[in-house]
Amino acid sequence: MFSLRSAVRQYRGLWLPSASVVRAMSSSTGPTAPFTTLAISHPAKSVTHVELHRPEKLNAMNSAFWSEMVECFNDLAADPDCRVVVVSGAGRLFTAGIDLMDMASDVLQPQGDDTARISWSLRRKIAKYQETFSVIEKCPKPVVVAVHGACIGGGVDLITACDIRLCTQDAWFQVKEVDIGLAADVGTLQRLPKVIGSRSLVNDLALTARRMYADEAKSSGLVSRVFPDKEAMITGAVEMAGEIAGRSPVAVQGTKINLIYSRDHSVAEGLDYMATWNMSMLQTDDVIKSAQASMEKKGPKTVTFSKL
Amino acid sequence: MFSLRSAVRQYRGLWLPSASVVRAMSSSTGPTAPFTTLAISHPAKSVTHVELHRPEKLNAMNSAFWSEMVECFNDLAADPDCRVVVVSGAGRLFTAGIDLMDMASDVLQPQGDDTARISWSLRRKIAKYQETFSVIEKCPKPVVVAVHGACIGGGVDLITACDIRLCTQDAWFQVKEVDIGLAADVGTLQRLPKVIGSRSLVNDLALTARRMYADEAKSSGLVSRVFPDKEAMITGAVEMAGEIAGRSPVAVQGTKINLIYSRDHSVAEGLDYMATWNMSMLQTDDVIKSAQASMEKKGPKTVTFSKL
Amino acid sequence: MFSLRSAVRQYRGLWLPSASVVRAMSSSTGPTAPFTTLAISHPAKSVTHVELHRPEKLNAMNSAFWSEMVECFNDLAADPDCRVVVVSGAGRLFTAGIDLMDMASDVLQPQGDDTARISWSLRRKIAKYQETFSVIEKCPKPVVVAVHGACIGGGVDLITACDIRLCTQDAWFQVKEVDIGLAADVGTLQRLPKVIGSRSLVNDLALTARRMYADEAKSSGLVSRVFPDKEAMITGAVEMAGEIAGRSPVAVQGTKINLIYSRDHSVAEGLDYMATWNMSMLQTDDVIKSAQASMEKKGPKTVTFSKL
Amino acid sequence: MFSLRSAVRQYRGLWLPSASVVRAMSSSTGPTAPFTTLAISHPAKSVTHVELHRPEKLNAMNSAFWSEMVECFNDLAADPDCRVVVVSGAGRLFTAGIDLMDMASDVLQPQGDDTARISWSLRRKIAKYQETFSVIEKCPKPVVVAVHGACIGGGVDLITACDIRLCTQDAWFQVKEVDIGLAADVGTLQRLPKVIGSRSLVNDLALTARRMYADEAKSSGLVSRVFPDKEAMITGAVEMAGEIAGRSPVAVQGTKINLIYSRDHSVAEGLDYMATWNMSMLQTDDVIKSAQASMEKKGPKTVTFSKL
Amino acid sequence: MFSLRSAVRQYRGLWLPSASVVRAMSSSTGPTAPFTTLAISHPAKSVTHVELHRPEKLNAMNSAFWSEMVECFNDLAADPDCRVVVVSGAGRLFTAGIDLMDMASDVLQPQGDDTARISWSLRRKIAKYQETFSVIEKCPKPVVVAVHGACIGGGVDLITACDIRLCTQDAWFQVKEVDIGLAADVGTLQRLPKVIGSRSLVNDLALTARRMYADEAKSSGLVSRVFPDKEAMITGAVEMAGEIAGRSPVAVQGTKINLIYSRDHSVAEGLDYMATWNMSMLQTDDVIKSAQASMEKKGPKTVTFSKL
Amino acid sequence: MFSLRSAVRQYRGLWLPSASVVRAMSSSTGPTAPFTTLAISHPAKSVTHVELHRPEKLNAMNSAFWSEMVECFNDLAADPDCRVVVVSGAGRLFTAGIDLMDMASDVLQPQGDDTARISWSLRRKIAKYQETFSVIEKCPKPVVVAVHGACIGGGVDLITACDIRLCTQDAWFQVKEVDIGLAADVGTLQRLPKVIGSRSLVNDLALTARRMYADEAKSSGLVSRVFPDKEAMITGAVEMAGEIAGRSPVAVQGTKINLIYSRDHSVAEGLDYMATWNMSMLQTDDVIKSAQASMEKKGPKTVTFSKL
Repeated sequence: MFSLRSAVRQYRGLWLPSASVVRAMSSSTGPTAPFTTLAISHPAKSVTHVELHRPEKLNAMNSAFWSEMVECFNDLAADPDCRVVVVSGAGRLFTAGIDLMDMASDVLQPQGDDTARISWSLRRKIAKYQETFSVIEKCPKPVVVAVHGACIGGGVDLITACDIRLCTQDAWFQVKEVDIGLAADVGTLQRLPKVIGSRSLVNDLALTARRMYADEAKSSGLVSRVFPDKEAMITGAVEMAGEIAGRSPVAVQGTKINLIYSRDHSVAEGLDYMATWNMSMLQTDDVIKSAQASMEKKGPKTVTFSKL
Repeated sequence: MFSLRSAVRQYRGLWLPSASVVRAMSSSTGPTAPFTTLAISHPAKSVTHVELHRPEKLNAMNSAFWSEMVECFNDLAADPDCRVVVVSGAGRLFTAGIDLMDMASDVLQPQGDDTARISWSLRRKIAKYQETFSVIEKCPKPVVVAVHGACIGGGVDLITACDIRLCTQDAWFQVKEVDIGLAADVGTLQRLPKVIGSRSLVNDLALTARRMYADEAKSSGLVSRVFPDKEAMITGAVEMAGEIAGRSPVAVQGTKINLIYSRDHSVAEGLDYMATWNMSMLQTDDVIKSAQASMEKKGPKTVTFSKL
Repeated sequence: MFSLRSAVRQYRGLWLPSASVVRAMSSSTGPTAPFTTLAISHPAKSVTHVELHRPEKLNAMNSAFWSEMVECFNDLAADPDCRVVVVSGAGRLFTAGIDLMDMASDVLQPQGDDTARISWSLRRKIAKYQETFSVIEKCPKPVVVAVHGACIGGGVDLITACDIRLCTQDAWFQVKEVDIGLAADVGTLQRLPKVIGSRSLVNDLALTARRMYADEAKSSGLVSRVFPDKEAMITGAVEMAGEIAGRSPVAVQGTKINLIYSRDHSVAEGLDYMATWNMSMLQTDDVIKSAQASMEKKGPKTVTFSKL
Repeated sequence: MFSLRSAVRQYRGLWLPSASVVRAMSSSTGPTAPFTTLAISHPAKSVTHVELHRPEKLNAMNSAFWSEMVECFNDLAADPDCRVVVVSGAGRLFTAGIDLMDMASDVLQPQGDDTARISWSLRRKIAKYQETFSVIEKCPKPVVVAVHGACIGGGVDLITACDIRLCTQDAWFQVKEVDIGLAADVGTLQRLPKVIGSRSLVNDLALTARRMYADEAKSSGLVSRVFPDKEAMITGAVEMAGEIAGRSPVAVQGTKINLIYSRDHSVAEGLDYMATWNMSMLQTDDVIKSAQASMEKKGPKTVTFSKL
Repeated sequence: MFSLRSAVRQYRGLWLPSASVVRAMSSSTGPTAPFTTLAISHPAKSVTHVELHRPEKLNAMNSAFWSEMVECFNDLAADPDCRVVVVSGAGRLFTAGIDLMDMASDVLQPQGDDTARISWSLRRKIAKYQETFSVIEKCPKPVVVAVHGACIGGGVDLITACDIRLCTQDAWFQVKEVDIGLAADVGTLQRLPKVIGSRSLVNDLALTARRMYADEAKSSGLVSRVFPDKEAMITGAVEMAGEIAGRSPVAVQGTKINLIYSRDHSVAEGLDYMATWNMSMLQTDDVIKSAQASMEKKGPKTVTFSKL
Repeated sequence: MFSLRSAVRQYRGLWLPSASVVRAMSSSTGPTAPFTTLAISHPAKSVTHVELHRPEKLNAMNSAFWSEMVECFNDLAADPDCRVVVVSGAGRLFTAGIDLMDMASDVLQPQGDDTARISWSLRRKIAKYQETFSVIEKCPKPVVVAVHGACIGGGVDLITACDIRLCTQDAWFQVKEVDIGLAADVGTLQRLPKVIGSRSLVNDLALTARRMYADEAKSSGLVSRVFPDKEAMITGAVEMAGEIAGRSPVAVQGTKINLIYSRDHSVAEGLDYMATWNMSMLQTDDVIKSAQASMEKKGPKTVTFSKL
């Protein structure tokens, strides 16, 4: 019988670009300690760049990745010097999705001595993996994600948890999970329909696992801007992030928190929460500073806002 | 005074194409017993084709139709040989909507001897008619609907309960109910806004009863693909259905169920339900089979999945 | 230090077009008593035109405006001669948003002698301002809004509470609040994501405060039609309003109420409410009248429907 | 090893009272065709008595029972001659709960060739069993349940779906499921906490499987009245049912429907639904008739209300 | 045929105690202008007493009452000198409920020329009547209601919208609506089940319209204290109100608002709202003042808190 | 002016019993490392006893406590040897609530340089403190809490997050927060109304801060059993915990998880979740083992269940 191990080798071979190409495309020299899958940099004031950085494995999501993301975004959430995050992928493409080889033992070798106990253990694991992307949403700083090449499987779970999506003209997206026998369970089925407007398209993508290319991604609203190539996109993403980072963090982060709250509540509930939120936040000096700058015809980026 | 009865005759005449044309366009020879309004066929492995089949009445929805749909989809939900459903209309167009002539007695001749009792009886009927389309949603097998010609009134209620919408270049859609003095009450007002992204367009369609043509249906996301003609569309629909039917039914049906659950819940609730769902579903052999096929570079369609 | 007062003068100067131009563009001779910011007219049968009318101040929303809108729409809700509302702006543009100069004392000079009491007072004010746009939604008559020139800040809060959005080719939209240091709190963050399909675009607009022009407004679904100029748009808006006003008010207003209910509830809940709604509304004579007109090939506009 | 089969025999023996005692206590001569587990009678005008009637098996819930209840209550829901339902148990006690012997094959011999398929099949079965008690709630006629002797396991699921609970002084209640290794899944965990006010007590009962006797059932609010013996209780239940049956069915059934709606919604939502409900129901002649009777000092029971 | 008019006269006669008795029992000299049904007094610092004051009509709720309550509680909500409200009834009993004679024309003489239009008008009226009691809940000041004699029909709707319920030993409560042919539609069905713990009792009361006396009202939790007579109760109510009024209004009113919010939301949502609420309210000086008083062994009532 | 520091000293003195008395009453020799406020022991198989252990400070909740609870319950949630938790307090009483002296700097010395930033920081802290008790709820093992002496302020937040509440005859409970100028924000306002059935009582307790003694705690359903003294109570609590711990952990923990889920959802949603939960959990061997034991007339405690 065909062995899983040799299949893995073959499978990997298919995807591996030559090492030199990968290095050339990667924007950094390697992961940032203590991370092994993420490279962190600061391309602009108050902007943090988180790069998926396992280019030789096509940024496939291995065990380390799932916990490093949580640690990384919990740090960013608490870091007053970070006001906006840009996420992108090093190497040939954004991400090939879950690293089946690395994760197989975790998911396919169930723990427990009967079905209930295996189920119990699996539920805890799924919840843990879901948290990997939910931290992006819980982090009050806006997250701009920039996709090039391909964004497959788990990658779609990741980007739908981000706030603004950009891509290159050569990018494609694929909800891959049905092809490996499972319903996507770390966010795509929950967030994708709330991220794009066409339910027919969501179902089409999730049920046929077909690729969606940049143009359809733009016209369907999955991404809000398409760039000719990765370099232009990263430049654009950092510029956009800088625009946001230059504004009042009280305004920006309050906006993100309330937009997410409103997604999950009725309009009336969202308004009530908003009023309760702003009864204190409107007392910030940032409003005075911003209003004055506005009247002096200086943009908000000229103002210095205190840390939050 | 103008009589209702004669008006009905005239009205019908307006719509009736010649019988020969109708027959030529119809893809089957007639309804499938015990149904009188539906023709059932099996164009591909595990794919069931449900054709609205009263072409000489423009597939208008008569009393029989409302209960046959329920029986049909409850059967399909339980039939392990059916993994995907394609719905289309026989004859000149998809459907002219509710068959007012046939239904008038039901809706317009109220039962009961005071307003409360008439209301009571009407509520029960509306709930029953709503069920006719809700069964499509409750059936865990994906439903691809292929619209040609026209889709009017009740037709829009029907297609918004389906999972994937396709149409021909000559198709148009019309939320017709306000034109006959009522607020659409069997699903359009509930589902259309969750099916397309533009609320302004939803309101425009529902309040003016104007026609929307294929191009706008595509750009607004109501349909995900437009085909040049009916033949191409049916071929495309069956192909797409075949693609889906070839994948793991555990994955496909779990995907549908969770997508619908997520529509009606917050993201956090959707994720919790998903984890509770997959704690057992991930234990399926389909994952192993699919993963192995994937690694052997065989598509999921080469795998034989057990019935569900 | 730069003084707020002088800044205000400068700021105003920047925006003020010459008085003659403003008058020429304004469609009415002035506000309608008792209103000082709104001009009310009746361009067609059962159609009420509400024009924001402070053209020399670019229809900026001052103290009077916030309460006049509530009074106006509560009146319209109860007025049986009004079946549809058209909203537009007099002068050079739709609205420059909140009138910071007029409102500053209200929002920036907090009442109360400690943080809790200031917060309490602010919450009450925000809730009051929110009501200014929520009345549009609570008014069961459909509201068509026609935007030309620019729609800034509070203007976006206003239009997202309307049912159908139209604009001119030269119109642009701007979620301005982050630029003055606050999270938009009178509706934009709650309604915009439920009005257009692309969440990435919503976040982009709300976080960068960039302008969105007519073409993107159309492709994203914010507006359902774009007109070459204001005159064509107002003509189109009144025509569309007339179309709707000619139909059964029982059908039309029931449609609006149920569409809004469904936005905030699950499909199952929406269907239940709909059935409970229509158990009485279906007993209206309007259904008989409309059905008969339809069969006589007369449009619904030929029917005279009783007031509601 | 101890065999299941012989255990079953022993187990049954433990519970079986002598046949003569059972017959003496049963209020009817046997099940009413086509039912094999239910005896239907009409002890008072518009009152239907549904008696669990397998006294020799302690009214344990076997396969037939689960579907007969659904058929029975769907019939009652549609039967205009039934306005109130009384449920009780024939023989020595109310019910011993699920008939493990009869149901074991259904639940313990899973269908399907892998965990996912077994799970799929089990989920469908659980949903079907849940429906057995949910029909009681969906039936708009009030259901008074009268418990004597014991109410164990599935019996608690049953009675918490009823509207009014009565018991005899010798009755006890037991949430039994944890004792056989499962979380109660046909309603107790969902309804019991909404039926009695003490959450500590709910948890105590559900986690320790201890018996609760009549006095605690009364003081905790599980039952609203305790009777000295079964005869007094049945008399009391039928009297109470008669009281309710004598009132306007529009009022009574509308009350039940709205009470259940309100349980599952916020107060604001409940009020909105109520207003939409009563906008038609207040138009009933029953209000006039009842008001007149009230003024004439005749009770509502002297009025003849039309069927509903 | 028995005439409605003469019946009314008889009906009234039944209930009318002699005028002298009524005057003796009434705690005030008459309604407080501009009110005709309410007497307002200030029995203690920051405590407002609202007395239903139509003793000769048993405080039956007439047209005037329904709007005066709204005006009264909206005033109290905005009045910084009112921190707690006590509600009671003048004369022989708390309230006989809706004044059918006065209201009949409003409810029983429907406006509109077909069923839909009558329904429309009724829905608006019901919503208006619901608001009469919802204002009690929207008023952030705690409302203590003190019931003596009887509390019938609309009276139960009223008291379930209050925060704390007290009664005399001779008081009884009756959900009367089914007796006059309608489902209670101004709050009882929505609030009673969330006010007392036994659902069986709620259904019993609402479906049989039986009286519940003080002891059961106490043991079921409807009231939290029972007093021997009216005088003792009013004294107790004012004392309790004084206790509450002496505490920080920021703490007290925030507590009421969050308790009501939590009733209608999940625990997780309630906690989130609470944190967003207190992020400003904790900054109040009242915490410092209260903490200091507590440490000095002075009660909170010795502290002077600023108005809110 | 009266100084806070000296007040603190006085305040502490009031509460401090003599050290010897405290030690005598404490059931353990001191906190269990690494904890400084909690003593952990294992009084029965699979039962963990968590004792609040700062008897000399009346178990007041200091900084360490808030994080130790989280660590402790997260550990217990993951520890397969723990199946049930008993919580009690060492020394003279259960807990005096929050340790104002220790926490003051945290809550009363706000971080940040304007109101918005202080609010931001406070919100994060409140959320963190809320988590201290929410972990009790998230831990799937049932938690039995045994209260003696007094349970004040934060203590009520704690016990309402537990599953079963017991107390001694001398115990009293006090929702203390309004007395120190704030609305209780770590759980009491959210959970208490869902824990006891009388809303009038909840409001009474939360608004007057009065003490509730054991008898009222029992009759209101706050506790499910009252014991004569602490020793009897601890014995009873451990016995009850042992009863639960002896049952299938799949059944017990599934019961807790679904009871909490149902509290926050409609009955229909709760049933759906339950079915999805049990589709795997019913496949456990524990059902077979338990059923067999039951038939052999052995209790569930005789069965050995695998770890979960």
